[in-house]
Amino acid sequence: MANEEVVLLDYWPSPFGTRARIALEEKGIEYDHKYEDLANKSPLLVKMNPLYQTIPVLIHNGKPVCESGLIIEYIDEVWKGEPSLLPSDPYQRSKARFWVDFIDKKVHGSSRKIWMSRGEDQETGKKELIEWSKLLEEELGDKLYFGDSEMGFVDIALIPFFNWFNIFKTFANFSIEAECPKLVAWGKRCMEKDSVSKSLPHQEQIYEAYLEFKKRLGM
Amino acid sequence: MANEEVVLLDYWPSPFGTRARIALEEKGIEYDHKYEDLANKSPLLVKMNPLYQTIPVLIHNGKPVCESGLIIEYIDEVWKGEPSLLPSDPYQRSKARFWVDFIDKKVHGSSRKIWMSRGEDQETGKKELIEWSKLLEEELGDKLYFGDSEMGFVDIALIPFFNWFNIFKTFANFSIEAECPKLVAWGKRCMEKDSVSKSLPHQEQIYEAYLEFKKRLGM
Repeated sequence: MANEEVVLLDYWPSPFGTRARIALEEKGIEYDHKYEDLANKSPLLVKMNPLYQTIPVLIHNGKPVCESGLIIEYIDEVWKGEPSLLPSDPYQRSKARFWVDFIDKKVHGSSRKIWMSRGEDQETGKKELIEWSKLLEEELGDKLYFGDSEMGFVDIALIPFFNWFNIFKTFANFSIEAECPKLVAWGKRCMEKDSVSKSLPHQEQIYEAYLEFKKRLGM
Repeated sequence: MANEEVVLLDYWPSPFGTRARIALEEKGIEYDHKYEDLANKSPLLVKMNPLYQTIPVLIHNGKPVCESGLIIEYIDEVWKGEPSLLPSDPYQRSKARFWVDFIDKKVHGSSRKIWMSRGEDQETGKKELIEWSKLLEEELGDKLYFGDSEMGFVDIALIPFFNWFNIFKTFANFSIEAECPKLVAWGKRCMEKDSVSKSLPHQEQIYEAYLEFKKRLGM
């Protein structure tokens, strides 16, 4: 589409920002990338997402779309060309939305426990994350991607969190390799894609952001 | 559509179950209504929603769709006839999804505080709920419904919670009449619709369920 003005308000280490980046890359959409300093949010972010003031926000021809899952759906509905990110069948689409919601609630929640706590609480987070990984591996089955033969909505939603798993390996002695070999293979497969490899933050970026975040919270 | 087997696993007082009922009524879909005893869940519920074991679950030709927001979207995508529950424009659709998510997180969260706590925590819940109501009234503007001239996704998602507001009136001295007259008028307008009036639980049903719930939690 010509004359489209697409802006992404983003924060490089954010898994939610990463989702938006991957979706834009998958569709080959050119966009203006604006990075936010989350300790000092821009007036544009406050104006575009007054309720939550969180990134990512996709601004398309001046109109804001907030929340990473909704951004992916919006991109897929507006830029209808291949690849399709959501399945065309309503039942499969509903299942994809279900799993993205599961990742938002469960995978994100347990990952936060690993980041933000120590001792028993961190161990609980690790146990939970292995449980969620097993469920996701079961859902993946023998498919190449959650989106079947191509990467789709669930893949894009999960891979930024999967990228954290590698950091948890050194940081919290966490591994799913023994329990979830198929999910590990899926992760490597996704990371080989250009849209993913150029969108994922480097592990040092994530770790720095983590230290900054803890400092901001006075931990 | 002929030869459709539609089953709703439901619990009469649930606002989430109510959403599914209204959407089915709006589309004129015949369905088999199965009520769950949440203290003793049926094997069918456990099988159809193994992850969360929550209602509502819509079982369409043997396949389960879980989570009330996803059920409304699924119904709208499969039964394409009028009325449309989601807007056809991607930006408006994205906005509708955003507000339903807001209701799930914020309106539900603060309502729970009013139900489940006393004293200061309950007062916090009431203050929050007035704040959310003001934001929703602003979003409603001068439209008849959130879905513009017809009831849609956001209306269906909000009205079961709005129905609680009347109970909070006697139960927790809560009112939004002074602050949000347009939202109050919107609520009355929705309740006059057949699809809503026959789907909403009676206030005594809600109150009984609340007492049962507290007992189950040992409160």
